[in-house]
Amino acid sequence: MSLVVVGSVAYDSIETPYGRVERTLGGSCTYIGLAASYFTQVKLVAVVGEDFEEADARFLESRGLDLTGLERRPGKTFHWSGVYSADMNDRTTLRTELNVFADFDPKLPPSHRSAPYLMLGNIQPALQRSVRGQMNGVRLAAGDTMNYWIANQREELLETLRTWDFLLINDGEARMLAGETNLRRAADSILDMGPHTVVVKRGEHGATLFRRDGHFSLPGYLLDHVVDPTGAGDAFAGGFLGYIAEQGADPAAGPLDPKLLRNAVVYGSVLGSFCCERFGVERFRTLTRAEIDDRFQEFKALTEF
Amino acid sequence: MSLVVVGSVAYDSIETPYGRVERTLGGSCTYIGLAASYFTQVKLVAVVGEDFEEADARFLESRGLDLTGLERRPGKTFHWSGVYSADMNDRTTLRTELNVFADFDPKLPPSHRSAPYLMLGNIQPALQRSVRGQMNGVRLAAGDTMNYWIANQREELLETLRTWDFLLINDGEARMLAGETNLRRAADSILDMGPHTVVVKRGEHGATLFRRDGHFSLPGYLLDHVVDPTGAGDAFAGGFLGYIAEQGADPAAGPLDPKLLRNAVVYGSVLGSFCCERFGVERFRTLTRAEIDDRFQEFKALTEF
Repeated sequence: MSLVVVGSVAYDSIETPYGRVERTLGGSCTYIGLAASYFTQVKLVAVVGEDFEEADARFLESRGLDLTGLERRPGKTFHWSGVYSADMNDRTTLRTELNVFADFDPKLPPSHRSAPYLMLGNIQPALQRSVRGQMNGVRLAAGDTMNYWIANQREELLETLRTWDFLLINDGEARMLAGETNLRRAADSILDMGPHTVVVKRGEHGATLFRRDGHFSLPGYLLDHVVDPTGAGDAFAGGFLGYIAEQGADPAAGPLDPKLLRNAVVYGSVLGSFCCERFGVERFRTLTRAEIDDRFQEFKALTEF
Repeated sequence: MSLVVVGSVAYDSIETPYGRVERTLGGSCTYIGLAASYFTQVKLVAVVGEDFEEADARFLESRGLDLTGLERRPGKTFHWSGVYSADMNDRTTLRTELNVFADFDPKLPPSHRSAPYLMLGNIQPALQRSVRGQMNGVRLAAGDTMNYWIANQREELLETLRTWDFLLINDGEARMLAGETNLRRAADSILDMGPHTVVVKRGEHGATLFRRDGHFSLPGYLLDHVVDPTGAGDAFAGGFLGYIAEQGADPAAGPLDPKLLRNAVVYGSVLGSFCCERFGVERFRTLTRAEIDDRFQEFKALTEF
């Protein structure tokens, strides 16, 4: 079942203790789309400039991504550059050049409007709402956000996430959105804002899914070598929603199966962990579904008691 | 099967966002002993001063703790005072008055020397080694340590932990001991130092048990209200080793059962989580084994997929 993914497509320059890459393919839409492509048909909605490489488009298509909604505009592609601390727990943004992304005004091609699943990457809340409004008959809509929107466009964001099924958000941002340091109470307060399910991404510490009827926690996958954490949160979102789309989850047919949601958290974590093994999106050039399913089983073995 | 616990018995003055308590019973030996008392017979080895309250001794005895090894000396009991940050993730020590603890030189009563299980709380490595040396026929020995000993008595510490089966250590201290930021590689390098099992306590993020043949991760229990985290790591150690002692684990009879070790991590986490629900050791005044077993089952429900 097809999944529309909206967000940024970017060129990133990244430095980590493992090295440095220049102008490598990145952006939330890219990571979400690549991760979800192992589970379902993905339609990207994003904007790039004239410098966008054909080879990058071919790579995305080779993973089955539908690029009909990838707008090409005069100017340059969004460029981000950043450097990670020695322990990878902090990163400093060196440059953010929005370029064509500054005027991004997503228009969905007609073929995208009836897709049953929607993942709104971290962009301006008003744009997320506009996309949601262009779709008919969405079964399940999910979105991400960040500290900047929480601090500077809070009312707009609250209005936007009212219609989401899933909010995927990181630890610190969940606390910030709720104005509450205790994670359990923060999640309770976010559940009052609209989404029936809040997935808190906790980086190396795993993820927790909260619903009114309880929660589910998964520890982080301990990698031997974290080469580059860029995009791991988006890859998590792609794995999470990709799996839900693959399973054809349909709230109109009855309550969402708790087991399906738990498995989706595990698949999200699996995709996030693979993402960190190489710079940028490199790992998705070789990753196979069999490796994904093996790591899913590994998670079971690592957590069972 | 009886467990000898060595460490500090103290009076603590603690301030958290939930309030403030003055000179409340604390110390590593106290927390470990109380937590372990739900599983096995515990023999405390520690020192207190003339100000040690009879009511506190009676409370420890009411939990079945054997106080034969609790030395009373002229002077005052160890006093620690500290204040926690608003999110409870940092604490500042205001005062450390070692008092009688400054000259602590643990001598085991003869009745303690043949106990099969030993838990060495966080004290000077040379004293931990002295205690280990006074015992005959220990089946399993475990110990904790801290940044101060890692930084200032590294050689002594390395010599000491060579003979331990279990090292229980927190996240940051494991990285410091190994000189390695990646947790998985840090644990591998600690396994080269002697212990066949390293349990990394990760506070609100849970715990991970590492052995040569693999690892096991448990997420943290999400409390609604963390009133006071003091002693949670020691309560973890008490639950962990108490359960192992209760089960009568015996390496002479064959390899340790991986399932038993995983359950021990869960019981450790259960005891650590209860500890945070009230100031100081207050929660242990009412806590029952039934509540402990309920929370063990709750952990299963929260983590199963």
